[in-house]
Amino acid sequence: MGLGGDWDRSPITAAEIKQGHEAVDAALSIGINLFDHADIYTRGKAEKVFGQIFKDRPGLREEMILQSKCGIKLMEPGDSTNSFDFSGGHILSSVDGTLSRLGTEYIDILLLHRPDPLMDPEEVAAALQQLKKSGKVRHFGVSNMSAAQIKLLQAYCDEPFIVNQLHLSLNQLSWLDAGLSLNRPAFKDVTFPEGTIEFCRMENIQLQAWGPLAQGLFSGRALDDQPERVVNTAAMVADLAAEKGTTPEVIVLSWLMTHPAAIQPVIGTVNPQRIAACADADMFPLSRKEWYDLYVCSRGERLP
Amino acid sequence: MGLGGDWDRSPITAAEIKQGHEAVDAALSIGINLFDHADIYTRGKAEKVFGQIFKDRPGLREEMILQSKCGIKLMEPGDSTNSFDFSGGHILSSVDGTLSRLGTEYIDILLLHRPDPLMDPEEVAAALQQLKKSGKVRHFGVSNMSAAQIKLLQAYCDEPFIVNQLHLSLNQLSWLDAGLSLNRPAFKDVTFPEGTIEFCRMENIQLQAWGPLAQGLFSGRALDDQPERVVNTAAMVADLAAEKGTTPEVIVLSWLMTHPAAIQPVIGTVNPQRIAACADADMFPLSRKEWYDLYVCSRGERLP
Amino acid sequence: MGLGGDWDRSPITAAEIKQGHEAVDAALSIGINLFDHADIYTRGKAEKVFGQIFKDRPGLREEMILQSKCGIKLMEPGDSTNSFDFSGGHILSSVDGTLSRLGTEYIDILLLHRPDPLMDPEEVAAALQQLKKSGKVRHFGVSNMSAAQIKLLQAYCDEPFIVNQLHLSLNQLSWLDAGLSLNRPAFKDVTFPEGTIEFCRMENIQLQAWGPLAQGLFSGRALDDQPERVVNTAAMVADLAAEKGTTPEVIVLSWLMTHPAAIQPVIGTVNPQRIAACADADMFPLSRKEWYDLYVCSRGERLP
Repeated sequence: MGLGGDWDRSPITAAEIKQGHEAVDAALSIGINLFDHADIYTRGKAEKVFGQIFKDRPGLREEMILQSKCGIKLMEPGDSTNSFDFSGGHILSSVDGTLSRLGTEYIDILLLHRPDPLMDPEEVAAALQQLKKSGKVRHFGVSNMSAAQIKLLQAYCDEPFIVNQLHLSLNQLSWLDAGLSLNRPAFKDVTFPEGTIEFCRMENIQLQAWGPLAQGLFSGRALDDQPERVVNTAAMVADLAAEKGTTPEVIVLSWLMTHPAAIQPVIGTVNPQRIAACADADMFPLSRKEWYDLYVCSRGERLP
Repeated sequence: MGLGGDWDRSPITAAEIKQGHEAVDAALSIGINLFDHADIYTRGKAEKVFGQIFKDRPGLREEMILQSKCGIKLMEPGDSTNSFDFSGGHILSSVDGTLSRLGTEYIDILLLHRPDPLMDPEEVAAALQQLKKSGKVRHFGVSNMSAAQIKLLQAYCDEPFIVNQLHLSLNQLSWLDAGLSLNRPAFKDVTFPEGTIEFCRMENIQLQAWGPLAQGLFSGRALDDQPERVVNTAAMVADLAAEKGTTPEVIVLSWLMTHPAAIQPVIGTVNPQRIAACADADMFPLSRKEWYDLYVCSRGERLP
Repeated sequence: MGLGGDWDRSPITAAEIKQGHEAVDAALSIGINLFDHADIYTRGKAEKVFGQIFKDRPGLREEMILQSKCGIKLMEPGDSTNSFDFSGGHILSSVDGTLSRLGTEYIDILLLHRPDPLMDPEEVAAALQQLKKSGKVRHFGVSNMSAAQIKLLQAYCDEPFIVNQLHLSLNQLSWLDAGLSLNRPAFKDVTFPEGTIEFCRMENIQLQAWGPLAQGLFSGRALDDQPERVVNTAAMVADLAAEKGTTPEVIVLSWLMTHPAAIQPVIGTVNPQRIAACADADMFPLSRKEWYDLYVCSRGERLP
């Protein structure tokens, strides 16, 4: 679970701390114990709020798997773009910043946030080894990376990458379409490097899904300007939820979790009600027919 | 050779049995001994016709390499789409159905027909092992799969996949364009996962071509609504056939067979005349110039 | 450095020999010692000019790393297209032609120029082995090839492929975009097989860049009909050159050389002034910010 909120730079308010406590309670109460951060989320405020929460509740940190990320540099005034930085210096100082904001001695899992074309795998390897040896980071992973990128990094890094966090949802389907469009016109619309899911499955790299709820598109958001396929999918999700006696959020998550790759959704909300709506997502596995119907409805095109 | 015909559910007629005998005779007489089925072809009727033929002609089955496929579930009333099913239960029952319809004890080669995104490689492996041990299937292969998909399955399956059946023809060229369009605009039109042909060649996975005759496009079909590149290619095929003293079908097949990947065309017709027109396709290898001229003509664009 | 010039068939003139001497001197004087040929460059004239230069200056050849290429067959009258030919016969006779034109006993590096879909890896392997054993070629590489194509060839060839020469420049960005567009619409515009750069880095296959100066687009060419992103990039290059006290050419090359894959630009001009303008390209490494600013400016779209 990631702490969302605005990307502002204003000081943390008491209301935000309160919201953080409520979000953590809501998450823990439904069995969520992986908390997903990044050095850049709300420009560090998300981690700071957690730091305050840990101060308020001794012992809480050890109940969690704390994950954070580094490697993206957000645009500053004078920059033309976000960029990426896997230099040893940036990785090490980013982790120190995260540890300091979180007020913890270690991160359970550190993800390299987006591929940096300027990365030097040997330099990355040295930085990760130092983080491992110092005890600051226990495990490593990546995010938004292809099989080839992971292979290149892994060839130099002793520690295994155990996670690849990708944007996967019922509304972000290229990871599936890539494998089903061989010799089909739909192949041209694929935006996902074919083989990445298969590689991660084969190498036992856990797939985490960011944006798994598709920003609420199938669970209550206004659909006025949405294409027919989205409207139809939302209706199908609602019907399934009613039929099974659960929430639309659970159906949307269960659709991901029914996939045999053991995808772990990472929910990006701090709203306790929305978190609660995700409870027991693993209790409502979908049948093959339900899974395919949802996929094809959202895809908007029959399978070959 | 696959038994085509309509996808209806009406009972098998005596005429169909007769047609089947003639098709088999035509095929055997030109040296074809691989017969390609699938549980879904004419919804099982194709296999049933062969079962009747085997009853009529004891000993015939052993002269053949019988190949069948499973894993596609055709739309039934109430379904929104065809889907795929590599569950152990579906694979096992599909093979039992095929064996029963064919009236044989074993399939020589069983192909997994299209990638099932919900496949669990361990479950597939267990099913295939059971089929192997029971003697129901001798060899295994896949169809319409990318290198990454085959690798994932092979990582779990003890038995080697020895075939990948793909749609390859003089009119379905993405398998070639994929390898020749690096840094070219044509790359955007590619619909084939680059590297799949190379992977299969490297792993000694036989490439079978379905649709190798391009539905007769270059061997007599009306070309009224076809683009110029097709019309020109058909003319070039006709000229080559006349020049070499063979049929257009042979030229079209030879174009595939001239490729050094040892592609095996699987002809999808039951018309004895058309089958006969494919005789001796391996006797008319094309020169490099002929091969490239045909490729570039059908492609409609010069090579870099 | 490749000897460019026209692709005519007229005899070599004294002026061309003089130009060749000047180009070689200009190159050697700035530390360039790799000279890049191909059997087809100016249909053999480029190599012949070098042959004459070597005659004029004994001992010069040993100061150079001589690279040439084979495998492309340019269109002749009656051909419909350029084509590719990795047959043993063509490779061997092409190398003999190159050696004869260059007037040397050996080529340091022979590249297979573009993938030949009709290549038989075993036949290629036999030809390369023969060239190695005879001493005619010392090392081998490829050009314009994907990871999968190199893997297939390497599986059969004992000698390692040590080079992959690709079109890489600040104006030919798909090799970078391919790795940064996962789940982004920009993925559809990619024209480069994702993973090829990573594979070459992992296998220690040197990346050489052809066309690294983008035909002068960022170093003085008229920009009247160019899109805004090109105009802006040229301005940014000019500013950086002024700021650092070097030439625009150096900035454009340094942008490639700053990438940690150790890309070796192969400059395609015989103009001594332009060659001189490339001097000391390795003395002006770009900062991460400069590198990303140039990339994003030329790309015309911010990074995610």
